[in-house]
Amino acid sequence: MTNKDARTPASVQDGTPLETASATSPEAGKSIGWHKAYVEGTRPDLRVPVRQVHLTNGQSVTLYDTSGPYTDPHVDTDVRRGLSPLRENWIISRGDTEEYAGRPVRPEDDGIKHTAPRGGLRNLDAVFPGRPRQPRRGRDGQAVTQLAYARRGEITPEMEFVALRENVSPEVVREEIAAGRAVLPANVNHPEIEPMIIGKRFLVKVNANIGNSAVTSSIEEEVEKMTWATRWGADTVMDLSTGRNIHTTREWVLRNSPVPIGTVPLYQALEKVDGRAEELTWEIYKDTVIEQAEQGVDYMTVHAGVRLAYVPLTANRKTGIVSRGGSIMAAWCLAHHKESFLYEHFEELCEILAAYDVTYSLGDGLRPGSIADANDEAQFAELRTLGELNRIARRFDVQTMIEGPGHVPMHKIKENIDLQQEICDEAPFYTLGPLTTDVAPAYDHITSGIGAAMIAWWGTAMLCYVTPKEHLGLPNRDDVKTGVITYKIAAHAADLAKGHPGAQEWDDALSDARFEFRWEDQFNLALDPDTAREFHDETLPAEPAKTAHFCSMCGPKFCSMKISQDIRREHGGSRTEIEEGMAQKSKEFAAAGNRVYLPLAD
Amino acid sequence: MTNKDARTPASVQDGTPLETASATSPEAGKSIGWHKAYVEGTRPDLRVPVRQVHLTNGQSVTLYDTSGPYTDPHVDTDVRRGLSPLRENWIISRGDTEEYAGRPVRPEDDGIKHTAPRGGLRNLDAVFPGRPRQPRRGRDGQAVTQLAYARRGEITPEMEFVALRENVSPEVVREEIAAGRAVLPANVNHPEIEPMIIGKRFLVKVNANIGNSAVTSSIEEEVEKMTWATRWGADTVMDLSTGRNIHTTREWVLRNSPVPIGTVPLYQALEKVDGRAEELTWEIYKDTVIEQAEQGVDYMTVHAGVRLAYVPLTANRKTGIVSRGGSIMAAWCLAHHKESFLYEHFEELCEILAAYDVTYSLGDGLRPGSIADANDEAQFAELRTLGELNRIARRFDVQTMIEGPGHVPMHKIKENIDLQQEICDEAPFYTLGPLTTDVAPAYDHITSGIGAAMIAWWGTAMLCYVTPKEHLGLPNRDDVKTGVITYKIAAHAADLAKGHPGAQEWDDALSDARFEFRWEDQFNLALDPDTAREFHDETLPAEPAKTAHFCSMCGPKFCSMKISQDIRREHGGSRTEIEEGMAQKSKEFAAAGNRVYLPLAD
Repeated sequence: MTNKDARTPASVQDGTPLETASATSPEAGKSIGWHKAYVEGTRPDLRVPVRQVHLTNGQSVTLYDTSGPYTDPHVDTDVRRGLSPLRENWIISRGDTEEYAGRPVRPEDDGIKHTAPRGGLRNLDAVFPGRPRQPRRGRDGQAVTQLAYARRGEITPEMEFVALRENVSPEVVREEIAAGRAVLPANVNHPEIEPMIIGKRFLVKVNANIGNSAVTSSIEEEVEKMTWATRWGADTVMDLSTGRNIHTTREWVLRNSPVPIGTVPLYQALEKVDGRAEELTWEIYKDTVIEQAEQGVDYMTVHAGVRLAYVPLTANRKTGIVSRGGSIMAAWCLAHHKESFLYEHFEELCEILAAYDVTYSLGDGLRPGSIADANDEAQFAELRTLGELNRIARRFDVQTMIEGPGHVPMHKIKENIDLQQEICDEAPFYTLGPLTTDVAPAYDHITSGIGAAMIAWWGTAMLCYVTPKEHLGLPNRDDVKTGVITYKIAAHAADLAKGHPGAQEWDDALSDARFEFRWEDQFNLALDPDTAREFHDETLPAEPAKTAHFCSMCGPKFCSMKISQDIRREHGGSRTEIEEGMAQKSKEFAAAGNRVYLPLAD
Repeated sequence: MTNKDARTPASVQDGTPLETASATSPEAGKSIGWHKAYVEGTRPDLRVPVRQVHLTNGQSVTLYDTSGPYTDPHVDTDVRRGLSPLRENWIISRGDTEEYAGRPVRPEDDGIKHTAPRGGLRNLDAVFPGRPRQPRRGRDGQAVTQLAYARRGEITPEMEFVALRENVSPEVVREEIAAGRAVLPANVNHPEIEPMIIGKRFLVKVNANIGNSAVTSSIEEEVEKMTWATRWGADTVMDLSTGRNIHTTREWVLRNSPVPIGTVPLYQALEKVDGRAEELTWEIYKDTVIEQAEQGVDYMTVHAGVRLAYVPLTANRKTGIVSRGGSIMAAWCLAHHKESFLYEHFEELCEILAAYDVTYSLGDGLRPGSIADANDEAQFAELRTLGELNRIARRFDVQTMIEGPGHVPMHKIKENIDLQQEICDEAPFYTLGPLTTDVAPAYDHITSGIGAAMIAWWGTAMLCYVTPKEHLGLPNRDDVKTGVITYKIAAHAADLAKGHPGAQEWDDALSDARFEFRWEDQFNLALDPDTAREFHDETLPAEPAKTAHFCSMCGPKFCSMKISQDIRREHGGSRTEIEEGMAQKSKEFAAAGNRVYLPLAD
């Protein structure tokens, strides 16, 4: 074994990565630590980033990397300029899109319709200072979606990119997308992304939510939150901004994001009508969707399944409707006593999304907000409608995933994924948790991490993270990190349980490092090397074997492991040989002083 | 609904608790907050503690309470005096035990055999300054165990106590114990405990490990860790102390503990032979077991399943033997090339344990220490031996539970509990986690909390907590709390999934408080009220509806919930009435200004 590669693209195994020295590792300069590297595809502009961990024993492990160019010291990033448009040539060379003038940016896009902004009206032509760009869309109403290409049998550079990332063949990627079992969210106006795929056949993905609030955060802070979340492994980011500067914030986030960005256009539409749900119209909503599609939003949550007839189904719930989008649409339906305009105009919406390759995330506006409401009639009525809408979206070649709950006790989780897969023709499921109990506010990353791991094992393709502040307040930087790490654990535990090829090699590499007391390797292989190192240094004294009673495997000498190692080394792999060698071993052990070096806990 | 009681003993529902005002609640003096209360049984000295949460709407919720007299402001506790011996009269009045002189305490019991103690030799007669006591044991070798009583059809006060705690009939408790499906660990020399039960028919329990280390902690700190762990919900505590003052530390912990205390006698036995495993003998081990039984240890981990023949089965493992007890016994077996003395003397050990009612926790010395080693031949070979030993223990009327892993990926967890239940005749399973991935050191409370919740749902009776410091170092106070809270979440999520009677009422009470924006009630009902309150105050400004974008349900007004509430209130429970009322509702909504107060996240 010369190269222990978890999730290893073939060309890394062939020894051809373009490797770049990293300045981010505390071990930079030494031969160990981790470094940003790239795997080249069939064309020079197709370079898949990986995190290469160099071990003290000379081996290396290659890990999936979501952190974008920010962790590459050879790339000079500048948030005012934005990331370079990696996919631009791929999109242009397909020849099926066109640039156009685009919808003019209006003051109300930034939520300043009715109030005088402090410091005078913004210069809306300078929403973002980076390279000038015009929006792009499919020519003549063509569907320029990865789904359309996949169905036609085309393997796009995006598909090849994710195939290398996932260590599968490009044809598998194409097939999964063509069948609607996976989505590759990649708006033609977001050429900056490093393509990724969401589907049960692939690694489980994690979404992190960010979003400005007029009171507490600035545009720069939102960009920083996005890079921070992807630094720890967020595969996509949803910008749930409301209030002021909503358009401008999104522009900055998009231009700087290496991962797909999702939004809920309904939030901005509601801002445009000053928060009065009944004043929402299809036209205002449609205008907002186009505005966001032109900016490059990769997937949009659309609560088109909240139909008028379902609102009464929530009447006897313990916690009613807890989805923001769901409540807005329920309020609209009640105010007008009419069917949802999203449901009524769904086909028209499909046409718009197809022209930019915006992926649907069909929202679960009636998801349960408490254990008591899990798997009820309202929830599943909406799910059946989402199944119907999914089939319509496919007709229009629009990529689609389905959102799921919420608060669900463990014994009711499997029904959610099984029903969703059946009703929605195996479209990717994208769930929030679910939270497996309501009693632990301040720990809902954990209550939900439990449910998330389980539902991902059973087939959920992407998990929306929950932070410790859920139900209580705004997450800070630490909360975002804790949420992402918790969900990466859930996702990886699911990858293991699903038997994802290569997933266990990561665990094996870390366990080998443990068995051999290679502490630096353990840290560098850890999901969170910084905290692992900090905890170790904080509490493990110089002579760990004497002190650590709660730590299962630490310490410089571990008799039981040594015994196992010795037996293995001296007697080969055969059980019989080992048994024959045991009496001999017994003598040697006595000769060596019979000293037992203790493991450090039981 | 006048009294929403989660896990409510019948007599609380009857309104007969002896309630005591609490000084520990920040709301003391007001009518809300939480208070220590007691439920009386059939005799005046049988009082079951509960945590009574008083809500702002006048209702109250009764929760299981493990915190002991320390949270009762009417009880004057003093760690130098110890807790009052609640069970003493019950034990004496059974008339089947006798006091006796007991084994003399020796210097080596405190690990000071070969080194001169600083400050001179301790006064071993004054190991603990509290009331003088003599050890007690069964007369004439009688088994004075709850199992023996249960089999005879006797319902002891201990059984009645746990029946009230669990809200089941005493006969159910007796039956489960008699069948060996539950244990009630209660050494006759530990009269201070508030009895509790461990079995799949009952609430899932959580154990917290403590233990001194010569370098970092004092006796007082261990007592403090024990009260801290039980304060947050630990149902039992294992004292894994090694090194100096091991006997004295245990004495202080026992005399002050309201929960059963578990130990691994092998650790102390090894100290007595200066850490040389090959010098261990049955006599030294037996002496240590008697020493600890006389002190009052309620359950003991015994690694009698690590047989000589199984050691080679670990040869090809990725991480060998990771259990401390397992490695000690493997080293002994190899050194002598003989069968384990624990296995050979198991029947004699049963006789000793039966005389004190010490419960077996049959240790899994060959548990997997990595994902790669899960469910292997070594692990299951030992499990089969534990099944054999369990049947022997039952012959001697010794209560028995079985320990389980370890590191197990999600898809291999269920096999563990299913096999254990089958092989061990449904004896209670007591598992460490399992950790569902190896890649997240510093977050192993979470990697293992996922596995713990699942295996508890499927029938594990008690979970041994894991702290964030697992694999890295010694847990501090915060780590102990985080470990306990994480495992209480796992246990409660499992109670919900198992449909434990009353479990969901706790969630319902908290969700009702959320729906009605009763913030103080949410905090007081939370598993960790302090952190929930702190997070809320830290980030939620005065006008929460405007700011909290990541918080699903906070804020003073929540339109969708209000709509649900209005519909429910105005149109009763009938769906038809509600549908008929919708047009009317629509008009009212418009008349009220159509204002949508937003929920705070989606």
